[in-house]
Formats: sequence, C-alpha cells, structure tokens
Amino acid sequence: MHFSSQTSSNGVSEQLFTLDDIPGVLWTPADATGPRPLVLLGHGGGQHKMAPPLVARARRYVADCGFAVASVDAPWHGGRPASEQRDRLIAPVRERMAAGEPVGPALADLHAALADLAIPEWQTVLDALQKLDCVGADGPVGYAGMSLGTGLGVPFVAAEHRVTAAVFGLAGDYGLTEPAARITVPVEFVLQWDDRLVPRDAALALFGAFGSAEKTLHANPGGHGDVPEFELDSSERFFTRHLAT
Amino acid sequence: MHFSSQTSSNGVSEQLFTLDDIPGVLWTPADATGPRPLVLLGHGGGQHKMAPPLVARARRYVADCGFAVASVDAPWHGGRPASEQRDRLIAPVRERMAAGEPVGPALADLHAALADLAIPEWQTVLDALQKLDCVGADGPVGYAGMSLGTGLGVPFVAAEHRVTAAVFGLAGDYGLTEPAARITVPVEFVLQWDDRLVPRDAALALFGAFGSAEKTLHANPGGHGDVPEFELDSSERFFTRHLAT
Repeated sequence: MHFSSQTSSNGVSEQLFTLDDIPGVLWTPADATGPRPLVLLGHGGGQHKMAPPLVARARRYVADCGFAVASVDAPWHGGRPASEQRDRLIAPVRERMAAGEPVGPALADLHAALADLAIPEWQTVLDALQKLDCVGADGPVGYAGMSLGTGLGVPFVAAEHRVTAAVFGLAGDYGLTEPAARITVPVEFVLQWDDRLVPRDAALALFGAFGSAEKTLHANPGGHGDVPEFELDSSERFFTRHLAT
Repeated sequence: MHFSSQTSSNGVSEQLFTLDDIPGVLWTPADATGPRPLVLLGHGGGQHKMAPPLVARARRYVADCGFAVASVDAPWHGGRPASEQRDRLIAPVRERMAAGEPVGPALADLHAALADLAIPEWQTVLDALQKLDCVGADGPVGYAGMSLGTGLGVPFVAAEHRVTAAVFGLAGDYGLTEPAARITVPVEFVLQWDDRLVPRDAALALFGAFGSAEKTLHANPGGHGDVPEFELDSSERFFTRHLAT
C-alpha cells in the first residue's frame, strides 16, 4: 500500500493510495491514532472513488463518528483501464438507459463480471487497511454503496465475514438473490419510489431476499438520483448503532 | 375541558381530562408554560388512550423534545360505551383475524363508521387544547397513529389543516386511498414486512397514495406487533424536523 498524497481540512485527513494497481483513498480524523471502526464505500456506475456523494458521506462519517472510511475505483472505473469485455457488457445497459427502460438483466451480467474482479480487490484492500495503526486488525467494518455499489457490494458482503453492517440501495434483485440470502448482518436499504432505472418490485424483492434478522427499508419519492439528505443522517445512526462500541 | 387528575414523574406531567363525553390525557413537561408543538396520538384497535405504546411514545416526545402530547379514547374504545353498530361491524373483522386472514375490507367498513364519529371529536379536542397556555393557538401540530390510529388518522389529517406532519403505519389502502391523496404534509410510514393482518401490497399502495412531496416508508421484518424500537427514535427526529422551529 503506497500513500501518494495527504491533505487535511476541517479535521478530516484525506490520503490517496495505490495497492497493486488499485487506486484508493482513505479518510480519517486528522489526529487519528489507534484502532477505530472502518467503513468501505462502493461508488455508483460510471462514478469513481472520489465522486461527490462518496466524499460527502466519508467526511460525515469521519467528522461525526470518528470512523476511518475508504474507497477504491472499481475495475473499469475512474482512472483504470477499460477492456473489450467491459465495452461488450456495457453496450446493452446504455441502450436501455437511453430508452428509459429498466436495465436489470443487462446490468446483472455487467455486475457479475465486475464482481468477479472487484471482490478479491476489496479483500486485498481490507487486509492492507487493517494493518494500519489508525484502523487496526480487529475493529468492526461496515460497507455502504448504492446502485453499482450494491451490485458489487452484495456479493462482497456475502463473501466477507469481516463486514458486520451494510447500507445498500437503488438496485434490484437481478443476479443478487442468492448472495443477498447469505447476508445475515444488519442491512439498511434505500429505495426510490419513482426510480426509472430500477423497477420498484425488483428493489422490494432484493430487500426481501436479505437473510438478515435486522433489515430496514427506507423508501422515498423521486428518481434514482433523488435520495433525500436525511438518509445520510440515517445511515450514520445505523453505523453508529452497529459499529461503534 | 375538565381536568380530573394530574401526576408527574421524571419531569413529565400527565393530566387526565374529559371534554363532553370524550376521555383524554395530556402529557407536557412538568414545568411547561407558554406555547409549544403538540402531537396527537391515535391508539390501535382494541386499545385505549393510555395503552403502553402510547404512554412510551408520549413520554419520549415530552422528555426529549419538550412537546405537548395528547390522546383520547376512540369511540367504542377504552371506557366508552359500545353500540349495536360496533358489534355488527366488528364481528367479520374478528372472524378473519381468528382465521389468520387479511382483514382489510371488513376493517375498512368498521374504520369508516368510526372515522365519522372520531374526526369531529379530534377537532373539538384540538380546539380545546389550543386554548391552553401550555399549547397555544398557533403552534405546529403533529399526528401519530398506527393500525386503527392510521385508519382514523388518515381521514382526520386530510380534513384538518392544523396538522402539519404525520406518522402512520400498519394499515392498508382499503377505504383510505382518497383521503391519503388529499394529504400533502410530510408523512413517515411504518410497514411490517411479515404483517399477517395487513397484506404488504395494500400497505405499499397506501404509502403510494399519499399526496405528500416528502413521504418516507420504513419497512422492517416481523409481524404487526414487532415494530423495532428504533422507529420510535426515527419518529422523534421526524417530528423534531417538522414541528420544532
């Protein structure tokens, strides 16, 4: 894990790193020493590790809760190379989005291919982060990701038992029913009532599929990009309840 | 409005009153003077104005937010007389409950008859409460009620423009679609994913019917009586956001 830059503002330190070929970013309290809860953030499709919603979420969790927060560019995203496979899988998704049609089945193929690449990467990154003094090897770990961040996050959290609480949303059950059923940690799931990219029934079916005894669905009016600000507050309380000791 | 008793514990004053033939209770901070937000609580079917979930909710809103909170026995509930009409309407509801079947259409008939009686009562009670020094005539008013408290609360809030925020839940759309569409104030709606008394689709349809620009659905696993404790916390933040200035 190679740290290439470090800046600090409003008490939050932001460090860029690379691990193998994976570009990432770690946010911590500026004066952080010793172990603390860690939250991993997964970005949306076409976004990257420092997309504005991720930076806003990271800064809130660090400033309000004292957590460490990390994000990486998913394969084929941010500054990372594309591939012929990616172009082939993304074409039908873009066609359906342009037509305003549900993208579910096409997205499931894309996400499945991406998840095969992303899951071992997240595990390698988590290994490295837990070796840092300001994170620690035994602390609680959360995951938050919407849309693509759920498409990759559900199989990741199902496979990775170090993650003990997760915030998902803006995704349907296409290809995710089986890994969702293996997740038993607390889940908060965000659904947009008028989401044209994710049919309401598919999102409700994904929520229903989680194996967790504690899972809570928050639905609000509006489209894919209209999640209200108070859901960030809610996710902060969710992680405080489940990660802070 | 005749106050018959007043007790105080943990900083919360509890005053029983009657207004015409309506038995009610008013909770306030023990030292309350001057105007403050008011929350009206509607109880569930077969319950009464001081059922344990209402007392717990009232004490939280008073102690944490400084609100005034009031509740009354609905017609045919608590210490109030039954009637031949009530017996006739409740029989098919009980039959279906005993059989573990959805009670929706039968409940809609019962609730419609009750709402005709309850709405003018709530309005009379609200008139009287707003004449009290510790409530005031111009303060914000909220309403919270689950199950029967939603069955009666939806037409009440639709008819009563003094109510500016409402927490509903554990009810389907039977007979409520039209008044729900007339509600435009912020709504928080609680749904139990495995509710055997309220089919999931009927509850989702009621949430969908509200005319409010800000409405948020919270769904959790479990049956009609299993709403998690953290939903009380959430409703408190909801009322703080919308009623406290």
